[in-house]
Amino acid sequence: MRCDVVAVGTELLLGQIVDTNSSWLGEQLAAAGIDSCLQVKVGDNQARIVAALQSVLRDADAVIVCGGLGPTHDDITRESIAEVMGTTLEMDDVIADRIARMFASRNRKMSENNLRQAMVPRGASVIEQKRGTAPGLICPVGDKVIYAVPGVPYELHEMFERAILPDLLARSGEPRKIASRVLRTWGESESGLNERLQPIIDELDRAGNPTLAFLASGWEGIKVRLTARGADDASVRALLDSWAERVRAVVPEVVFGYDTDTMESVVLDMLRAQGLTIGVAESVTGGLVAGRLTATPGSSDVMRGGVVAYASDVKFDVLGVPRGPVISEDTARAMAVGVCKTVGSSVGLALTGVAGPAEQEGAKVGTLCIAVALPAGGESGATSQLVASSTTVMLPGDRKTMRELAVISALNYLRQLLLGS
Amino acid sequence: MRCDVVAVGTELLLGQIVDTNSSWLGEQLAAAGIDSCLQVKVGDNQARIVAALQSVLRDADAVIVCGGLGPTHDDITRESIAEVMGTTLEMDDVIADRIARMFASRNRKMSENNLRQAMVPRGASVIEQKRGTAPGLICPVGDKVIYAVPGVPYELHEMFERAILPDLLARSGEPRKIASRVLRTWGESESGLNERLQPIIDELDRAGNPTLAFLASGWEGIKVRLTARGADDASVRALLDSWAERVRAVVPEVVFGYDTDTMESVVLDMLRAQGLTIGVAESVTGGLVAGRLTATPGSSDVMRGGVVAYASDVKFDVLGVPRGPVISEDTARAMAVGVCKTVGSSVGLALTGVAGPAEQEGAKVGTLCIAVALPAGGESGATSQLVASSTTVMLPGDRKTMRELAVISALNYLRQLLLGS
Repeated sequence: MRCDVVAVGTELLLGQIVDTNSSWLGEQLAAAGIDSCLQVKVGDNQARIVAALQSVLRDADAVIVCGGLGPTHDDITRESIAEVMGTTLEMDDVIADRIARMFASRNRKMSENNLRQAMVPRGASVIEQKRGTAPGLICPVGDKVIYAVPGVPYELHEMFERAILPDLLARSGEPRKIASRVLRTWGESESGLNERLQPIIDELDRAGNPTLAFLASGWEGIKVRLTARGADDASVRALLDSWAERVRAVVPEVVFGYDTDTMESVVLDMLRAQGLTIGVAESVTGGLVAGRLTATPGSSDVMRGGVVAYASDVKFDVLGVPRGPVISEDTARAMAVGVCKTVGSSVGLALTGVAGPAEQEGAKVGTLCIAVALPAGGESGATSQLVASSTTVMLPGDRKTMRELAVISALNYLRQLLLGS
Repeated sequence: MRCDVVAVGTELLLGQIVDTNSSWLGEQLAAAGIDSCLQVKVGDNQARIVAALQSVLRDADAVIVCGGLGPTHDDITRESIAEVMGTTLEMDDVIADRIARMFASRNRKMSENNLRQAMVPRGASVIEQKRGTAPGLICPVGDKVIYAVPGVPYELHEMFERAILPDLLARSGEPRKIASRVLRTWGESESGLNERLQPIIDELDRAGNPTLAFLASGWEGIKVRLTARGADDASVRALLDSWAERVRAVVPEVVFGYDTDTMESVVLDMLRAQGLTIGVAESVTGGLVAGRLTATPGSSDVMRGGVVAYASDVKFDVLGVPRGPVISEDTARAMAVGVCKTVGSSVGLALTGVAGPAEQEGAKVGTLCIAVALPAGGESGATSQLVASSTTVMLPGDRKTMRELAVISALNYLRQLLLGS
């Protein structure tokens, strides 16, 4: 089964928008075991859209065309598909009615243009719109098919998963259920993961189901994605459960979560479960750790706040760090203890280091000292004794990369200590 | 003149890498007045690469093919181009020698594979490599041309600007010098900018030089880019100077900088010029404003630090905010004054608001209160009296978007006050 992609929009060719839709579709298709061999961007020009569709359909079994389904004059994907099908467009009254009611419910006047979105090539079936105004289309061309979806990513994603992928799987004779599980990792390079997981990868290559892919995701770590197909949800889930556990068992120390977990959500959940609150003292990251913890909705029951101690005097005067050099684990530990007192938290996390461009106090660019202050004996009262731990790591990259890697490194260090506490 | 793009690499089709190269090239070509009507992604498969090149060359005058020039077996762009040219590859001794010396100078053993990168189709000329090991190629096909460049973005950018664009401009008979200027804006929507600048846009559309484009860039604001062509650097610069000033004069209050300026670099420069230092007190943004100010190298002479006052108690106890509701301009002003005292800065910037998911104290999601404390009479001594100003804005978007827009909104509010001080 081969399904190519045509992305429509002059703004894509002009580089005003990067075409992430075809990348996303390529990823989903590959995970489902469907080949995608050619992906084309073409402008809002009917002759060129028609030529692109005809050319792609010569070799592929199916094509997904993204964009050009809106209400304006530029949106000519419908007309182009009708031309390829050798048919004409007709008004679909159900869609027209839905669009009219949508405008009415928002007290907005509907211009005639909007009814363009209710035009459907004869012989096509409609993918009902759940999120926007333009429906998708399933358009048979002989024994092949053109799927049309809006270019808005969240509308496209929803229609692909709900209607297009099941239709493709049915046409390919593949089992109809498909699902993925992502293992979130930090602390091992992509090549290191690849090497350690090689026996499993070889086994999966032979079996072909589930598939396994690595997705390097910057300061989100490296994602290991398993995608399984099966006859029903239960068998797919069973496959994912068993292979996810096999992968985890090979690299247990680097797997911090699954699917929608993030490093910060995992850390916040662990703190919450242990009845702890947190304060953050940051020098080199200048607020990014606190910014990331507070990105999580509901963090306010655990996250008290923090001190950005960028100038050395702020470390000394606000956090009570003894005067002296500041790129050291001693300083980081004093910051971690200090911030607990300043913001009234039971746990303190502190970072000091050198992001560059120049070295500082003789410490090289990339140096990061992390410290965590935890209640002695695991007590959570604000008045209990604190025990500070610390470590130093060397991080690669430019200023921006070093600071981002510092954030996840520090949160992971805290996670490891919380696991042990 | 029409120049299309073929991006080569199975990893692009699998969505492991998003093809930003063709978007970047499309943007550069459009700015230079060259059309790009079709952009294709194809895998590491010689028959498909050849078919894509032949198909594109039927309509375009030139094609840039990105990627597939590396040393490994998968890298078959050279062979594919030779097939399209109807010729064979031959070893270029100069390139081979350069690659061998590069390995020797790094004390690394060169595998034979690497000499694949010295193979050149007969009749092609070489674009010398300045950054990587693979050279680029200029390959005539009748009166048309295929340019081959590595897929590594910074190698591609350098070769495009140094060799490909000048060659394209020479072929098109256009003047050979080209340069851009970006006006950085905040505070007006893209459609609002478009409307206010319409007379200038119409004039430029008629003249064709310079070109003007809008680039919406999230919490970096909206960029207005002018690109001018001319016979020499001086005439290009004169064109950019005069049109940039015309654009600025229409929307003077929203232009905060040019080219590599950022909102934070502009604010830091203004503070530095006025002999001021800054502290930041953040609730809703949880450290992101401080994180962004400290992203700028050299910020440490102006940026003292900040307090992330996420829990209300931290606002009361650390910043001295009077107890009571916290989503208010009163609280923001007290935070701004408080943080000056806490971190010893002459200026304080504070944010409090509601990022969602739920409303808070009756204030809707998207509410942002910003306050700035400045020394009275513009004095910069830490002991001088502070005067606090504040404003409330409503921001759109989900939690992440609201927080990001809050950061640039707050910095821009500070910028406006510093302009007046």
